[in-house]
Amino acid sequence: MYPILQGMRVIECASFIAAPSCCLHLRQMGAQVIRIDPIGGGPDFNRWPLAENGHSLYWEGLNKGKLSIAVDFATPEGRELVSQLICAPGEEGGLFVTNFPAEGFLSHERLVQKRADLITARVMGWADGTPAVDYTVNAAVGVPYMTGPADGKTPVNHVLPAWDLLAGSYAAFSVLAAERHRNKTGQGQEVRVPLSDIAIASLGHLGQIAEVQLSGDRPRMGNTLYGAFGRDFKTADGVHLMVVAISPRQWSGLIKVLGIAEAVAAVERERKVSFAQDEGLRFTHRDALFPLVEAAMAGRQSKELGEAFDANGVCWGPYHTLKSGIAAESRLVSANPLFSKVTHPSGMTYPTPGAAASWMQSERAGARPTPRLGEHTDQVLAELLGLSSGEIGRLHDAGRVAGLAKD
Amino acid sequence: MYPILQGMRVIECASFIAAPSCCLHLRQMGAQVIRIDPIGGGPDFNRWPLAENGHSLYWEGLNKGKLSIAVDFATPEGRELVSQLICAPGEEGGLFVTNFPAEGFLSHERLVQKRADLITARVMGWADGTPAVDYTVNAAVGVPYMTGPADGKTPVNHVLPAWDLLAGSYAAFSVLAAERHRNKTGQGQEVRVPLSDIAIASLGHLGQIAEVQLSGDRPRMGNTLYGAFGRDFKTADGVHLMVVAISPRQWSGLIKVLGIAEAVAAVERERKVSFAQDEGLRFTHRDALFPLVEAAMAGRQSKELGEAFDANGVCWGPYHTLKSGIAAESRLVSANPLFSKVTHPSGMTYPTPGAAASWMQSERAGARPTPRLGEHTDQVLAELLGLSSGEIGRLHDAGRVAGLAKD
Repeated sequence: MYPILQGMRVIECASFIAAPSCCLHLRQMGAQVIRIDPIGGGPDFNRWPLAENGHSLYWEGLNKGKLSIAVDFATPEGRELVSQLICAPGEEGGLFVTNFPAEGFLSHERLVQKRADLITARVMGWADGTPAVDYTVNAAVGVPYMTGPADGKTPVNHVLPAWDLLAGSYAAFSVLAAERHRNKTGQGQEVRVPLSDIAIASLGHLGQIAEVQLSGDRPRMGNTLYGAFGRDFKTADGVHLMVVAISPRQWSGLIKVLGIAEAVAAVERERKVSFAQDEGLRFTHRDALFPLVEAAMAGRQSKELGEAFDANGVCWGPYHTLKSGIAAESRLVSANPLFSKVTHPSGMTYPTPGAAASWMQSERAGARPTPRLGEHTDQVLAELLGLSSGEIGRLHDAGRVAGLAKD
Repeated sequence: MYPILQGMRVIECASFIAAPSCCLHLRQMGAQVIRIDPIGGGPDFNRWPLAENGHSLYWEGLNKGKLSIAVDFATPEGRELVSQLICAPGEEGGLFVTNFPAEGFLSHERLVQKRADLITARVMGWADGTPAVDYTVNAAVGVPYMTGPADGKTPVNHVLPAWDLLAGSYAAFSVLAAERHRNKTGQGQEVRVPLSDIAIASLGHLGQIAEVQLSGDRPRMGNTLYGAFGRDFKTADGVHLMVVAISPRQWSGLIKVLGIAEAVAAVERERKVSFAQDEGLRFTHRDALFPLVEAAMAGRQSKELGEAFDANGVCWGPYHTLKSGIAAESRLVSANPLFSKVTHPSGMTYPTPGAAASWMQSERAGARPTPRLGEHTDQVLAELLGLSSGEIGRLHDAGRVAGLAKD
């Protein structure tokens, strides 16, 4: 937590990864985020992994530090209440993040009747409103046919929901851009962030759409880094290391540490090339270079080799599982100031990440616990809408809002 | 291109994906971005894929619409010039994005002597300054051991540089947060965005660090979606489809279209469970459900099946290569308003993506061509530093700056 965005107020009606992570980023930079869920929770409220008490660790991870309010989304009165919360006054409010359909009661057109300068950031599947998730978008843009063994015939899915995460951070960027624009012009906006557009634009930015037009699909090549020297190699003690040499220094360090300078020079003479300054040649001649590196690394112990790599500017890293990585590499979690131990509604206490960026002239406060569903219903209704305790009681009695479930 | 951030001026000294994509996002939302490169280009200037004329399609993709200036980074006079450009006055300037080392001539501490309210966003490998790239960070946090066939013993690298892309958009978000804070307080900041922190914080946000503490590493499971129903299935005509059923509606639509409601009910009776409202049970009982879906889909043609899926709210999508996806799915590129055909320094004309977000109340202008290296050297020196043509000529003669290379 940093107080950088202090004063900003964001309303979230969303589920799953992209939109909630957008609001998490805003929250961890200091904004107030009020997450409005249907009573009983949205479609992501029980998403796996689950804790022993049944709480979702996934929901818990994506909603840290937010205020939680539970409202009946199915009735006109409940929907009216949601609209009032979204459109509540305040110069730094009127910021709404959602993945609800573009038409319907949370459409920007309807909401803007209540607050003309409203900013809506809407995460979508396809831009036309067709549903899509990270996995189906990834399949559409071809990444599963780029991933995995060179001789594989079937697609290999990403496990990491990369497009969701990217849509979330891009949406957070878009919210701040929209607010900056509103501060200058007074205008609100709806900004839409479809997963499909995030995916295809990213591949375009990486030059891959141009490449396809020029030379067709890039062949699958397993763990080989495209266009430079890089692959996984195994050491004498059976450890897999990812080794990359893009810059001249990384390459000269690698061949020095491995003692293969002469063998590499022989390849250069035979093939009339020089690898020192041209990372592309290190890629096209990988048939000759990989066996040299493979043989040299197979004769070395990982610990000694890693130290030598570090001393010579080689870019490398061991492969871990998440568990072994956290245990072996203290810079990830245990010695990382991003993390603080926090107790959450799951009843578990675990290292919890704050903002991924570090502000060098601000003090980082610890990560915040995740609210329980409906924990702040009464507080938000009173503070944001100015409702009396009598009015709030009536809403509870009518089933229009809910506080903490008894569990 | 949208004019949302018009007026903002960003200086970029960076290479590869993360920091350049940060500035691309800012540029495509309307900021002016001045990319300063060493004469002859930075370490990413020749990065693959390459066009027939040798220009990098990768560099071209990541630097669209920026102004390009080439300066000698190795001499005190050249470095002084770079510092002056970064710290040039202007209320909406003083925004600097880099992946240069935290110490050294582009350290925030040194720069801030020239402009006290400077904002520096620094993308890093590890937070301590140790080099790392997307591939080595990914190896450290365990994703390659989560990816790929369930019976695989070796790591499977991501081809998509997900952490780079995510660091780029998160850095763009951070730049806007920092500027908002500066507008309120007058304070500049250095904000650091290490790839390693982006990766481990993301896994934490997804609940996976808590999960590891609770139950250890999640087993590899090939193309299976964790925690709900989802996998790739093959149709009678040999097409791979990704099918996902997280919501109750997606599940009921799927079993209806496939005509397996009775068979599913038999599993429910036998195992004393109900799948309709619990996506987790659809995951834990996938040993019984996958064969039913497999057999049903193997008897259907992909075209007919897709139409039925769409009509019944099933979340699905075909696997494509990038080339076949672009050809088959017009919403990706050919009918997508994000794209415009632009001619670039590679000599190629190809569909070029603008901002991935769509602003519903603003008009989208076409994507911009990428500059040639040094194309704007004289213009930037004159406009931003007020140098006379005589002074600019002297800098050229002394080799401190360069314009367009003759090629």
